[in-house]
Amino acid sequence: MTDRLDPGAAIGILGGGQLGRMLSVAAARLGFTCHIYDPGAEPPAGHVARRVTTASYDDSDALRAFAGAVDVITYEFENVPTSALDILEPLKPIRPGRRALAVSQDRLTEKAFLCDLGLRTAPFAAVDDEVDMAEALEEIGTPAILKTRRLGYDGKGQVRIASPAQADAALEQMRGTPAVMEGFVDFSHEVSVIAARGLDGSVACFDPGQNVHRDGILRRTTVPARLTSAERSDAVLLAAKILNALDYVGVMGVELFVLPDGLVVNEIAPRVHNSGHWTQDGCMIDQFEQHIRAVAGWPLGDGRRHSDIEMENLIGADIEKVPDLARDPEVAIHLYGKAEARPGRKMGHANRRLGPAG
Amino acid sequence: MTDRLDPGAAIGILGGGQLGRMLSVAAARLGFTCHIYDPGAEPPAGHVARRVTTASYDDSDALRAFAGAVDVITYEFENVPTSALDILEPLKPIRPGRRALAVSQDRLTEKAFLCDLGLRTAPFAAVDDEVDMAEALEEIGTPAILKTRRLGYDGKGQVRIASPAQADAALEQMRGTPAVMEGFVDFSHEVSVIAARGLDGSVACFDPGQNVHRDGILRRTTVPARLTSAERSDAVLLAAKILNALDYVGVMGVELFVLPDGLVVNEIAPRVHNSGHWTQDGCMIDQFEQHIRAVAGWPLGDGRRHSDIEMENLIGADIEKVPDLARDPEVAIHLYGKAEARPGRKMGHANRRLGPAG
Repeated sequence: MTDRLDPGAAIGILGGGQLGRMLSVAAARLGFTCHIYDPGAEPPAGHVARRVTTASYDDSDALRAFAGAVDVITYEFENVPTSALDILEPLKPIRPGRRALAVSQDRLTEKAFLCDLGLRTAPFAAVDDEVDMAEALEEIGTPAILKTRRLGYDGKGQVRIASPAQADAALEQMRGTPAVMEGFVDFSHEVSVIAARGLDGSVACFDPGQNVHRDGILRRTTVPARLTSAERSDAVLLAAKILNALDYVGVMGVELFVLPDGLVVNEIAPRVHNSGHWTQDGCMIDQFEQHIRAVAGWPLGDGRRHSDIEMENLIGADIEKVPDLARDPEVAIHLYGKAEARPGRKMGHANRRLGPAG
Repeated sequence: MTDRLDPGAAIGILGGGQLGRMLSVAAARLGFTCHIYDPGAEPPAGHVARRVTTASYDDSDALRAFAGAVDVITYEFENVPTSALDILEPLKPIRPGRRALAVSQDRLTEKAFLCDLGLRTAPFAAVDDEVDMAEALEEIGTPAILKTRRLGYDGKGQVRIASPAQADAALEQMRGTPAVMEGFVDFSHEVSVIAARGLDGSVACFDPGQNVHRDGILRRTTVPARLTSAERSDAVLLAAKILNALDYVGVMGVELFVLPDGLVVNEIAPRVHNSGHWTQDGCMIDQFEQHIRAVAGWPLGDGRRHSDIEMENLIGADIEKVPDLARDPEVAIHLYGKAEARPGRKMGHANRRLGPAG
């Protein structure tokens, strides 16, 4: 492979949170050095990286210097500003590429893209104003959920609409921001596929995990997920379809609703994903290394797991569970080095080994 | 436990080679930050640590500043100069403690210590001059091996004496350095126990691994080792005896020769050990995290393994095997970020999963 990076090469990571941190460790394991770019001081990833640039995403000099210092650029979050990408893209390869970011930065674009691929999504409609809202209510009905088209994560930027009477208030909360209304899907449970595509076009998926959310935040992922073997195949095939359509390079998280008559795509994330943290202790090659392998042009791991794992997020005060978790020999603790345990803040996660892969 | 360090605490590591590097990653995983102290520029551990001090071990100002910046001090190599320890010890806890270092820094002291504990070692005798040499030859015979009492690793500072005629030349090579002569032991194979002792005195051992050396350097460790269950118990019990006698805190590598009539202690190393690298992919809590847990006053993992592993060192030009190894989904690659692949230099290792723990 001509584009294969050798050990010693520098990988630039936009965003220095916990995902960047775990990517940096995985990159070091393969002999790469990491350079983190983050607007905040003391980003968690900076504790395990060779270099850190502290600068905003509109600091074009800092962006250029960063691009000059690395061999390839990746990111830990999909909301990298377009203006920053415009500066970086001519200088160094950005993986995954622009198309994946464009699609996933906008909920409406994403849903349209998925539908064009022939995949099922929740019913949706663009809602910019009262006229759109009336149409959407007619088409989708209630209960529904109104989400900003751009930004928003972990349940932020979302309002539930239980009945048509709540529609006006919901629209007001958007403060004129373009939004999308989504109908509810009557699913039995949510699973996600952590899929990867290499620079050579090969695709590999980890076993789907079953997710439990609370207050819009992922709490727990259990592998294996409750799925028939047909559903399992469908999940993997549709993930591959998405990656191939985007000519994607890297790891993607694909969240799926499981319905009696098939799978509905909830959301895609063009990056390593919280629901893939179990791979750190269930697989020889985890999602972080898989992503680094992809962006570095290395062969992918095949995604096989050796152990069944239950991943539990440690959110806010959950950090106080650590002393107890540390006493359990079947639990691997992963903390993110964040100083302050604010409510809703992801402080770490714990992977519990349930046994050999069943 | 009063001495338990909370996440966010800083761990100081003397030595920034591959062991310091893997300790730093393990510490970060538990939410600690690491501060590496190393005389060399760009130490491998510096790529995954929050802070690096580049200074010699006789720079008392740098040592004091380092001690002032961390909460506990540990090390990746047993040859930390006594003068440096004298400066550091009054300022911050050093774990494992001075006694373990004193014993393992001197081959003669180490062997005497082990014998005092009632453990078997190879026959040995101090050799400082021709008179000692003559006595040692009489007592131990040949073949034998002459080793410097202090320093020396990976076969360095050692001369074989095949017959009495070679004794003079061997002594000359020591250039007046105090030495110890060791007799050969007719062992069938070598195993090592990676043992840990917590701040509370609890002891936990990983399953013994079977080692293969070439040119005095470890090439391969396979787990499980070929041992009867009685030998396995003996190995673990004698390791615990050593740790308890030293009031040890941390991980220790104990190398053992297997003889038809029992185990002989070859060498102890008061640190994480190359023959324990398999734990990274065979256990939920590996030797590096185990060491950090011990020095941080956390509960130890119990050492159980979920997988059988064969660890292969990548030495010098072995680094060229990486592209092939990367294609094997059962292999986890661990590279150390060293720029130049000199002959005999440890560049990384590869853990191959052989299957579930058998």
